[in-house]
Amino acid sequence: MTIADRWLLPDGMDEVLPPQASRMEELRRALLDLYHSWGYDQVMPPPIEFLDSLLTGTGTDLDLQTFKLTDQLTGRMMGASADVTPQVARMDAHSLKRQGPVRLCYCTNVLRAKADQHQGGRSPVQVGVELFGHAGLDADREIVQLALASLEAAGAGEIHLALGHIGIYRSLVEAAKLDGEQERALYAALALKSPGQLAEQVAQSVDDPVLADMFLALGELHGSDQVLVRAREAFAGAPASVLAALDQLEVLYRGVAAKFDVSLYFDLAELRGYQYHTGMVFAAYVPGYGQALAKGGRYDDTGRAFGRARPATGFSMDLKLLATLALGSVAAGAIWAPPGEDEALQEAISALRQQGERVIQALPGQRTGPAEHECNRCLELIDGRWQAVALTQETRAS
Amino acid sequence: MTIADRWLLPDGMDEVLPPQASRMEELRRALLDLYHSWGYDQVMPPPIEFLDSLLTGTGTDLDLQTFKLTDQLTGRMMGASADVTPQVARMDAHSLKRQGPVRLCYCTNVLRAKADQHQGGRSPVQVGVELFGHAGLDADREIVQLALASLEAAGAGEIHLALGHIGIYRSLVEAAKLDGEQERALYAALALKSPGQLAEQVAQSVDDPVLADMFLALGELHGSDQVLVRAREAFAGAPASVLAALDQLEVLYRGVAAKFDVSLYFDLAELRGYQYHTGMVFAAYVPGYGQALAKGGRYDDTGRAFGRARPATGFSMDLKLLATLALGSVAAGAIWAPPGEDEALQEAISALRQQGERVIQALPGQRTGPAEHECNRCLELIDGRWQAVALTQETRAS
Repeated sequence: MTIADRWLLPDGMDEVLPPQASRMEELRRALLDLYHSWGYDQVMPPPIEFLDSLLTGTGTDLDLQTFKLTDQLTGRMMGASADVTPQVARMDAHSLKRQGPVRLCYCTNVLRAKADQHQGGRSPVQVGVELFGHAGLDADREIVQLALASLEAAGAGEIHLALGHIGIYRSLVEAAKLDGEQERALYAALALKSPGQLAEQVAQSVDDPVLADMFLALGELHGSDQVLVRAREAFAGAPASVLAALDQLEVLYRGVAAKFDVSLYFDLAELRGYQYHTGMVFAAYVPGYGQALAKGGRYDDTGRAFGRARPATGFSMDLKLLATLALGSVAAGAIWAPPGEDEALQEAISALRQQGERVIQALPGQRTGPAEHECNRCLELIDGRWQAVALTQETRAS
Repeated sequence: MTIADRWLLPDGMDEVLPPQASRMEELRRALLDLYHSWGYDQVMPPPIEFLDSLLTGTGTDLDLQTFKLTDQLTGRMMGASADVTPQVARMDAHSLKRQGPVRLCYCTNVLRAKADQHQGGRSPVQVGVELFGHAGLDADREIVQLALASLEAAGAGEIHLALGHIGIYRSLVEAAKLDGEQERALYAALALKSPGQLAEQVAQSVDDPVLADMFLALGELHGSDQVLVRAREAFAGAPASVLAALDQLEVLYRGVAAKFDVSLYFDLAELRGYQYHTGMVFAAYVPGYGQALAKGGRYDDTGRAFGRARPATGFSMDLKLLATLALGSVAAGAIWAPPGEDEALQEAISALRQQGERVIQALPGQRTGPAEHECNRCLELIDGRWQAVALTQETRAS
């Protein structure tokens, strides 16, 4: 093996160097502070769990994304967490067992066996919040608002918010009495956004002409707020649960539009996370990014597998991706100190550091100077007292 | 599989619940801020690397501790990081390629295939610093001082610091011309701290009676500062590098004792990390903990495998363990707000949050009250203005 080989990192497993690592740390703190101020308590899920716990009720997508490991202690299969949300649901259902609404947040590394189609990395830093124990729209609105507040805190200017509702398709599937295979085939046709394929699948699977028209309409229902008007026409005779979903989207829309200056649009055929989402779903985009920066929605009953079915809604983001938004510079400026153990010098250095200053002490024989270490001041002994003085162009270069 | 089974976490893979997760977050920030103020730049190493890169020059201990995975993209073997230090050495040698001293710090999850003999967890959060590019004692002193400052920042009261130097044993091995097997056998006898076994191994391997006495003396050289006096007697005719190591320990001892109020002792037979350490080594203990809370030392030349041999010294700690020191309570007190979208209410909530307050808005129909959510104030409409007022014993319970 050559030295060149040892430099290689696996695809999508990147290291973060200065100053980007500091930017990520700053953003991490800003977001966790934001969540704290909204009443969310931080949790840290285990990086590895037994596979049975990790994949319960989450569907095959997550399974394929999960690194599998054998536990040397028990011989059981374990998986590295590829999505924190089901883990947090387990913590709410089993570990915390609190009554009433529970608000939790997290910021942690996850691992993906394969790079996402849209997302580069296999080692994202997942940051997000979950609100358990409340089935109402107020909880969903809080989650959407907090997602938008997060993007603003990260420095996003223009935000586009796409709203959808899994309950519409789910209700139509139920009304049309589709079997699992038909449900998946129709779902695939909708996901492809292909009218031809959708028409073909609907013709094959849906006997009732009224419902068939509704499925076909679903494929067209994306765009601005006019979508809701068109949806009410298309779904006039639909099951009550479809109409309830439309009502929810309208309330949500108003709640968000009143508080945030974002471009809102609807996509009623958006079925991302269909395997575990149960209600409204949303994705927030920022121009210049091909993928959503925040994704979330309602996913009731995930906790059932852990003994306590709980309403749940939340969202998550990739801190690595998000930190590329915040292109402002990290707080710069440091003080260069001469080497040595001189007591007065050491005291001056300690005092400055305690005041929040960054003091870099030179090491004996060091050939790099204050400029290479981004110092804008240096510590000098003036009138018998160590003082920080500005570096001139000359001293900087020396 | 029963519900009970799904609750189980693999041994040593723990979740961190509130409020302990917030304590860890606070400590993480305090430590990273401390390192920043000393001139250390944060880096984030990849959680997974190819096994060849990860284990280069680190010895078999780390190999046995590393979870192995197959990369689905390339078929190559990868490993989950079990120790960040070699990764940071690679970043210094290859990714940064800076001239002169480079100071780096990190705080990240690592994974261990087996629980350490002394350490409970298989999912520690490793936090630490590395100083590359300076071979002198000033760098070692800075590292030891920063380790002690870290423990103080974490709330440690009484600290015991053990100092050793790998160079002593290494020089004696060289002088006695021991082969690899003899070196390992003697090392094992010293590690066991068994005088009988040591005497046996020395009799078998060391022909020169002067050197044999020195090996035997090494096993006894642990204790307070008198150890250095005894060592100078025992090693009077030893190679110059042994005497140089003793000089280094003495300077280090004085540099630390002058600045920190800690109990210092020496253990010249302490060979922890012998496979990669090259100079002084240290471990810091706090009463009540059976294991060292901070461990570090010099490990020159680790970067050689990556094309650039660099002097290096550093230390690391487990944030999870360290956070159990800080038993002070997390900043408490929050404001309870009534549910609803009322515009004035929403504005009052936003303003309070921006002031750094924690405001928890009740959700419609919620049965838990301010007391369950640790609120000490509530938002009330008084004289047409939303104001935070203290909760009385009565309102708290309601």
